[in-house]
Amino acid sequence: MYIPTLNDMLAAHERIAPHIHRTPVLTSQFINQLAGAELFFKCENLQKAGAFKARGASNAVFGLSDEAAARGVATHSSGNHGTCLSYAAGRRGIPCTVVMPHTAPQAKKDAVRGYGGRVVECEPSTSSREAVFAEVVAETGAEFVHPYNDARVIAGQATCSRELLEQVENLNGVLAPIGGGGMISGTCLTLSHLAPKVQVYAAEPEQADDAFRSFKAGHIIADDAPNTVADGLKVPLKELTWHFVSNHVADILTVSEDEIIDAMKLIWKRMKIVMEPSSAVPLAAILRNKERFAGQRLGVIITGGNVDLDKLPWQN
Amino acid sequence: MYIPTLNDMLAAHERIAPHIHRTPVLTSQFINQLAGAELFFKCENLQKAGAFKARGASNAVFGLSDEAAARGVATHSSGNHGTCLSYAAGRRGIPCTVVMPHTAPQAKKDAVRGYGGRVVECEPSTSSREAVFAEVVAETGAEFVHPYNDARVIAGQATCSRELLEQVENLNGVLAPIGGGGMISGTCLTLSHLAPKVQVYAAEPEQADDAFRSFKAGHIIADDAPNTVADGLKVPLKELTWHFVSNHVADILTVSEDEIIDAMKLIWKRMKIVMEPSSAVPLAAILRNKERFAGQRLGVIITGGNVDLDKLPWQN
Repeated sequence: MYIPTLNDMLAAHERIAPHIHRTPVLTSQFINQLAGAELFFKCENLQKAGAFKARGASNAVFGLSDEAAARGVATHSSGNHGTCLSYAAGRRGIPCTVVMPHTAPQAKKDAVRGYGGRVVECEPSTSSREAVFAEVVAETGAEFVHPYNDARVIAGQATCSRELLEQVENLNGVLAPIGGGGMISGTCLTLSHLAPKVQVYAAEPEQADDAFRSFKAGHIIADDAPNTVADGLKVPLKELTWHFVSNHVADILTVSEDEIIDAMKLIWKRMKIVMEPSSAVPLAAILRNKERFAGQRLGVIITGGNVDLDKLPWQN
Repeated sequence: MYIPTLNDMLAAHERIAPHIHRTPVLTSQFINQLAGAELFFKCENLQKAGAFKARGASNAVFGLSDEAAARGVATHSSGNHGTCLSYAAGRRGIPCTVVMPHTAPQAKKDAVRGYGGRVVECEPSTSSREAVFAEVVAETGAEFVHPYNDARVIAGQATCSRELLEQVENLNGVLAPIGGGGMISGTCLTLSHLAPKVQVYAAEPEQADDAFRSFKAGHIIADDAPNTVADGLKVPLKELTWHFVSNHVADILTVSEDEIIDAMKLIWKRMKIVMEPSSAVPLAAILRNKERFAGQRLGVIITGGNVDLDKLPWQN
């Protein structure tokens, strides 16, 4: 297992700079007063393709040799990673195949295709997904880019916190949501080297708290099919992300579904940005643990903005 | 009638700088491709209190002598101006009274009160509003700050285009929605002095096209109660805004309700920002007039982000 290094992050940042936005940091006095802390929201919902995953995907795609690149890239993801890999492949002009269940939302398939990628459908089961994916790779020779258990991807995600450190001084901590742990791992990678006093907190839905339980148990616990409005956070930790979580995360904080939805609506209403339920989990965790964070300066990663505008979670 | 000057705008910008955001300019490759033009969105939805009107209101409030300020400010507006005047008065620590019909949405009353202002309710008729407002002024001696027919307010709104000129080079034109004409007048004020080759276009709902008809007729035409989803644009031009519109606006473009809603959803979806229907009118006008704007570099003012998240116009 290769653990990505600070140099990998620095090389990633140089490599992907032409293909990503240096996203802005927004603040809200109203939310600061409510939280009793100073919050700095790093807006990866305003990132290319609408999510931080454009960073990791771009690093993987643009790091390939010309020969490997010519065979294209492939992944299985019905979430932002699939869209972002298609985006990055489109920028390099190489093929991209994304395997997803035929039951995935039409919008997700359209998003992959919108950037020029190909969608190959499978049955909504792990066995079907693995079989179909193996076929795709055998056929094309495409490079597999895992959504998070991949050193190139983690090094790419790590560039987000480097920007945050340049944009905001004297942070006490940084919070990000945790699903598979790609963003948290990248955050740990960067901060452990460049700002080791800044605490890294992961925030997770109670209803998909496998990372929380893994953290307490000291080994990876994976759930079968957790159910939460924060649909980006249902996937389990893997070896590489577990390395960073177990070594560098200060704590994992969990929140209820209602707390997630309330925090999401609060951000939409007060900060005027469109973001996903997953991205609201860190603010929900701060509001639930006000005493712990009182008076602190906290970075909060808004991880993505790809949400179904026809089905918002506060509407029934 | 005093016409605000370039120096008034410059003085306003210095006066209000501590109280407003220098809002970011966002772009979307997807929307550029769709429009066949390069669009630069000046995001006043991310402005303090959620609208560009924080600029004009702050200029009026912070330009008052201490003696006048002590008596407070007052206005009649159930829209962003009332909220923004309350915001500015709160920053200066002086009283603010906003007269609005008791039928106004609770959220609008809450917004004024949230910044410390007082809401005085009237009947939903012009006569009641005028009578109640006269009482408030007689009682308090408060300074009336009109939502747009006020040189201080226009000079404040004019600071938005000054920032835009600093943020984006070589613009061919700037588009803003037109209701009473405060933002358009400010835009004309700044551009006619600092960048006279940049064309100013006003965009208006077909269903509230009084400015369009005024522009064609050569005199102010006011409608009684226009009905449009762009609820910030229902008010008529007044002498001061007519001065700028009739002298400096290149054209007024109208769009349908469906075009407004489609453009709004497109901006939410692709740019990940929360903004009002009124703010979508300029993009709708560009998409309706693609040939006219082909290949141009255009500034587009996103005027505000105060929208009811429980009642979005694409949902029924």
